[in-house]
Formats: sequence, structure tokens, C-alpha cells
Amino acid sequence: MKLYDLSLSGNCYKVRLFAALAGIPLEIAGVDFLAGEHKKPPLTDLNPWGEIPILVDEAVVLRDSQAILVYLAAKYAGENWFPSDPLGQASVVQWLSTAANEIQNGPCAARLVDKFGYAIDKAQTLQRSARILPLIESHLAKHQWLALERPTIADCAVFPYLALAPEGGISLADYPNIQQWISRIKALPGFLAMPGV
Amino acid sequence: MKLYDLSLSGNCYKVRLFAALAGIPLEIAGVDFLAGEHKKPPLTDLNPWGEIPILVDEAVVLRDSQAILVYLAAKYAGENWFPSDPLGQASVVQWLSTAANEIQNGPCAARLVDKFGYAIDKAQTLQRSARILPLIESHLAKHQWLALERPTIADCAVFPYLALAPEGGISLADYPNIQQWISRIKALPGFLAMPGV
Repeated sequence: MKLYDLSLSGNCYKVRLFAALAGIPLEIAGVDFLAGEHKKPPLTDLNPWGEIPILVDEAVVLRDSQAILVYLAAKYAGENWFPSDPLGQASVVQWLSTAANEIQNGPCAARLVDKFGYAIDKAQTLQRSARILPLIESHLAKHQWLALERPTIADCAVFPYLALAPEGGISLADYPNIQQWISRIKALPGFLAMPGV
Repeated sequence: MKLYDLSLSGNCYKVRLFAALAGIPLEIAGVDFLAGEHKKPPLTDLNPWGEIPILVDEAVVLRDSQAILVYLAAKYAGENWFPSDPLGQASVVQWLSTAANEIQNGPCAARLVDKFGYAIDKAQTLQRSARILPLIESHLAKHQWLALERPTIADCAVFPYLALAPEGGISLADYPNIQQWISRIKALPGFLAMPGV
């Protein structure tokens, strides 16, 4: 099972982190991001959107880090990380949407500006971060983990770009609950780091 | 089962549309959006994010239109609209992420500017739409439905803000496959419209 990957990408790291935590072996295929390898064939034949990560598991080809987490968890990790009951699944998907939208366009986008020079409106990324971080902070005042009373793929999807927030100029000093949640994730058996985390 | 709803919201319409297609009865509770009812208690007790839709099903309270679709489909609609196999689920979640991010920040955000006067960078919403619409158009050249070979909640999640794109100044004239997919959805038994669709 092959993951087309970039070591500095938090979206790719979501998948690597979860696979490490769940003990799922992955073959890592590094993508030459600076050369735009992901925006040309053969990678655009796998993912026409020109993005990574991409997961290839025999005939299965998937784009989108959230969808890849769902596939790996449901197929290879039993009930633990993505439950099969409707409420459990919806509780996780709430946070997959948050990862796809508010986190992607908040702390992730802020880091893209500061660390990689993307032409994105930095002020808007900070505004979005300033809205989402207090909401997550309040949630974590009452919960150890984001979606259920145990770690799930919701935590794996949200973790990377919160842990990397300082690389986008966003301090977590005012968010002690988020800091403690980050520490809990780092203490999970099998935890895998990436540069900046 | 109660849906806190706004008739002009495409995110609320996702839920109403799916419930109509799947024959799931909903009690609609209209929210006074202009008065900011969704940003004050008691609604912020249900959803601290200050957003609608919100679904309340006895003790279950859910935010996020994508998560609500997953819950309703998994609990009340069997395999038809959200399958239980890992690949099927991931195939749907790819499009739920697209709805949460690219559609929300593209065609949906463009409509928020034009129709409701939101202070959002219109040019950026048009850029994002100009990226995502051709990708969906190409996908629909080879597929009748977005995720599987039948309609799923993926189609319900993406449909509203594509069908409403002209209200954000985005013409669908160059996207015949998207237009035909819209027509297929409108032809489904039980289809429910909203203003602008």
C-alpha cells in the first residue's frame, strides 16, 4: 500500500501519523513537490486535483486526507478509530469537516504563507484561526479527545495543523487545553513526529 | 427529529433535500438568521459554533451539514445513501471534504457576497470556483453520480451550492456535465427544491 507523500505536508502527515498509531504498514513514495510532480502525469492520472496525499491500495486510489483516514481506519483498524454506529461516525465527520475547512483555511493556510511563501491573504488566515482555536479550546475543556471518549481519526485529522500553528505565526500560549491535547496525542503508543511538531 | 433551519441556506438545504429523497420526516424549526438567533443561547448551547443547520434527534445533537447527512443516512436510510464498506465510505467522504472546503469557499462564498453582502474577497471565491468546477465537470464526464454508481449523500452535499452558483455570478454554461447531473438530481423521486434552485 503506497502513500504519495511530502514530509513537510501536514495533510500527508495526517495519514502517516494515523498509520503509525494504528500499526498499518505504508510504503512511502516521496513526491518532488517543488518540481510540481503532483501536478503532472502520472500523478494527475491518480489524482486529477493535483494534490497529495494520494493512497494506492491495489486497485483502490484515493485523494483527500480525510477520506484516506476513513478508508484506512474502516478497512484496517476495526472499530477503534472510526466507529460503525451512525452517531459515532457523524461525531467523527463533524471534525473531518473542520479539518477540511476551518483548519485548512486557518492555521494551515497561515503556515503556507509564512513557511512556503504562498500568495494567500495572511490576515484572513489569522482571522479564521482566531475564530476556530477558541472553539476547539472550549471543546477540549470538557473532552479529552475531539469526537469520542477515545482518540479517533478526528484527532489525527485536526492535530497536524494545530501542532504546526506556530510555524504560521500563531501562538498556542493562550490555549492550554489544546496544548494538553497535543501532549496526549504525542504520548500515544506508536506516535510519529514530523518536522515542526 | 428537529432541524434548525434557514430556507435560503444551502447548507440547511443539503439536509432537507436528503431527508426528502430518503423519506425521512423532519420537523423544521426556522431560525431568525437576520436577528442572529443562531449566535445566541439557546442555539449556541446546541452548537457553540453559532452556525446552522443543527439536528436534534432526542439526545443526539449534531452540527455540520456533512456530519448530519452521515448520521441520517447511516441511521435511517440503510446502505443506499452512505455505504458501510471502507472504500464506499471513503469515496463518499472525498466529496464531503470537497463540499466542506472547495464548494463552501468557492461558489457558496461567491453567493454570500452577491446575495447577502458578506465582506468576503469575491475575486478569491471566483478563483476557487474556477479551479473546482472544471474538476467536477471532468469527473462527471465519466460518472453519472459523484461518489458511487448511484446517488449518495455526496451528491446531496455538493448539489446545493453548484445549483445556486448563478446567484454568486458564476455561470454553469461552460459545464454541460454539471448541468446534466443537476437535472438528474432534480429528477430523483422525492426531490425538494429551494429558492434559486
